[in-house]
Amino acid sequence: MQNLKERSLELHKRSKGKLSVEVKVSIEDADDLSLAYSPGVAEPCKEIYQDPLKIYEYTIKGNLVAVVSDGSAVLGLGNIGAGASMPVMEGKAALFKAFAGIDSFPICLNTNEPEEIVQIVKSLEPTFGGINLEDISAPHCFIIEERLKKEMNIPVFHDDQHGTAIVTTAGLINALKVVNKRIEDSKIVINGAGAAGIAVTKLLINMGVKDLILCDSKGAIYEGRPFGMNAMKEWISARTNRNKSEGTLQDVIEGADVFIGVSVANALSPEMVASMDKDAIIFAMANPIPEIMPEVAKAAGAAVVGTGRSDLPNQVNNVLAFPGIFKGALRVFASEINEEMKLAAVFAIANLIASEELTYDYVIPNALDQRVVEAVADAVADAAIVTGVARKMNIEQKVKT
Amino acid sequence: MQNLKERSLELHKRSKGKLSVEVKVSIEDADDLSLAYSPGVAEPCKEIYQDPLKIYEYTIKGNLVAVVSDGSAVLGLGNIGAGASMPVMEGKAALFKAFAGIDSFPICLNTNEPEEIVQIVKSLEPTFGGINLEDISAPHCFIIEERLKKEMNIPVFHDDQHGTAIVTTAGLINALKVVNKRIEDSKIVINGAGAAGIAVTKLLINMGVKDLILCDSKGAIYEGRPFGMNAMKEWISARTNRNKSEGTLQDVIEGADVFIGVSVANALSPEMVASMDKDAIIFAMANPIPEIMPEVAKAAGAAVVGTGRSDLPNQVNNVLAFPGIFKGALRVFASEINEEMKLAAVFAIANLIASEELTYDYVIPNALDQRVVEAVADAVADAAIVTGVARKMNIEQKVKT
Repeated sequence: MQNLKERSLELHKRSKGKLSVEVKVSIEDADDLSLAYSPGVAEPCKEIYQDPLKIYEYTIKGNLVAVVSDGSAVLGLGNIGAGASMPVMEGKAALFKAFAGIDSFPICLNTNEPEEIVQIVKSLEPTFGGINLEDISAPHCFIIEERLKKEMNIPVFHDDQHGTAIVTTAGLINALKVVNKRIEDSKIVINGAGAAGIAVTKLLINMGVKDLILCDSKGAIYEGRPFGMNAMKEWISARTNRNKSEGTLQDVIEGADVFIGVSVANALSPEMVASMDKDAIIFAMANPIPEIMPEVAKAAGAAVVGTGRSDLPNQVNNVLAFPGIFKGALRVFASEINEEMKLAAVFAIANLIASEELTYDYVIPNALDQRVVEAVADAVADAAIVTGVARKMNIEQKVKT
Repeated sequence: MQNLKERSLELHKRSKGKLSVEVKVSIEDADDLSLAYSPGVAEPCKEIYQDPLKIYEYTIKGNLVAVVSDGSAVLGLGNIGAGASMPVMEGKAALFKAFAGIDSFPICLNTNEPEEIVQIVKSLEPTFGGINLEDISAPHCFIIEERLKKEMNIPVFHDDQHGTAIVTTAGLINALKVVNKRIEDSKIVINGAGAAGIAVTKLLINMGVKDLILCDSKGAIYEGRPFGMNAMKEWISARTNRNKSEGTLQDVIEGADVFIGVSVANALSPEMVASMDKDAIIFAMANPIPEIMPEVAKAAGAAVVGTGRSDLPNQVNNVLAFPGIFKGALRVFASEINEEMKLAAVFAIANLIASEELTYDYVIPNALDQRVVEAVADAVADAAIVTGVARKMNIEQKVKT
């Protein structure tokens, strides 16, 4: 770890950050200048002024995603501020480029006011083709995302919520295949009601899960719970835990088929795992120390275990989702990323592993599997077209759908 | 021109804009990911959290300039909006890179409210090392620039004002040498009281010019003029035209040594030139058609004529100024671009042409002269150090000053 620290600091210092802005046309002589800048540049300006959608033809907007953060919930470091979040946002932008060829740029804002952030990001709409919200604390992230989705005409995606939800759900689909259970019949307990926990819950509801309990630090969330509620938890409580089970995680985990942890280290004990149904599935994604270590969970009876760590099997890594999702959305100039597009991504990721390849330790594709981004992009672009949010189609896609 | 139009559209369409964001570290395997992204990326975050100035060491901020516009005064096209201004702002960012190696990024905002623009740009301070305001209409540009200079701790520069002023003044210094006149003894008339005209006026006051008259479309601006005034013109009127000359450009140009036009095509007639002092100096920068064409002005008695056009001698091109100014300011992490730094740029540009090289048709370096950017950057960095706005010095610079 010491070594990692020194190497990371050395890397960042030597390269002075991880991104550069490059010029992709020739600027060598007076003729180049007259085309790329004054007076020739007036021509694409006039075209866009006449037809605003032509901005996608003549500028970088169509392949450009902003990574927006206020630095309020950065990695496990908490609210370290916009400046200190820059290395993460640069890194995220770098992943967009490395995994999907998408130009991406960090926008770190020194305000934590949701209304201000909404106004700022909205005003950036002429520049960017998509908005990736990152490391913004709950509940602000819900407000900001909802407003921006409603008020902007470009895709807005809060990766900490939906990226995690999509990859986890893809892994869950495959894990259920391995243990031969059906998602509609499964009892699922989610621990952690932050941005990721809420998003996983919502996505699983959309997937048809019927028996689902979300726990926060105060235990199971149920309709009418008289303590520790907020608007989002109220909404969740009306749609999950229909038996209104009360109590701690330990109380409600009994008999569950699936545990999904987006909470804190060691939140799940071997005894709790032992109380689950046979062939239990566990996604323990607290970082860097999971809710339970895989070998401990397996010794207690779990069949499939995934974590957020790259050094363990079944890594839930958002990089499996966001590059392909934006690539697909941008390809068809989608005006938004809707639920159907997210579900399309879920199945694209899950289906990359053929049924006969699935094992307890291989229910999620490897983060560096190069097939992922195209599979996700194709599925998401198709879903955008089918749901009518695409503003451009190419023939290949029209034929396929 | 038809040809230029087609070629420019073709260039922009083929390349889909002019910029790309590239990754300057390796992202190939799991080890790369662990250094550039999670978990290693937490280390530079923590360093910056402890010491905010370390953001200049570990991120791209130190070499990153935003080109900010609301699209309200784009080239000669007027208020075409933020989206339609994107090709210009991308082009400007490309010039930053091509001329100075500075990473630069367009930020086109779909709001024309000065207060909103101020708040948005301020909130971007964690991300950018400098702000280049571009193509924002007067008087908003004055308000926005003044507020941002006061309220931000990074260089803010409105190129339409100061770039033009700096290059014009550099050309003027050399032109006066050629005709053997002194700037303190010269009568200067400026036509056009927009952003550029105001900035030229202010800079010439700082240069020690005593006899200066600024004209707008209603004629000479004088203290107490009962029509067509605003706050900026009031300010100017108290510091120029101390004889309170009234009348049209034609009335006040008589006997002038210098005419500076940032107004409209054909605003200066041969008769007006003939009424000027002998060896008249004329900078006629209306674009694309100057206030007077050089051959017409010379036939009427002018000695030195400059324009904004690349196909005529003595081109006043902002690209001589802004790349080196930001390069110098960023090199020493300057907290602002102050008047001394602008004057340093003026003399650096002027002095690139040795006295013995000066001719009527060569008072301004060529826009593509590769010596310019370093000369300007060195002078500006030194001026930043001397005036105490540098936050970092290298040994070479400390020795030199």
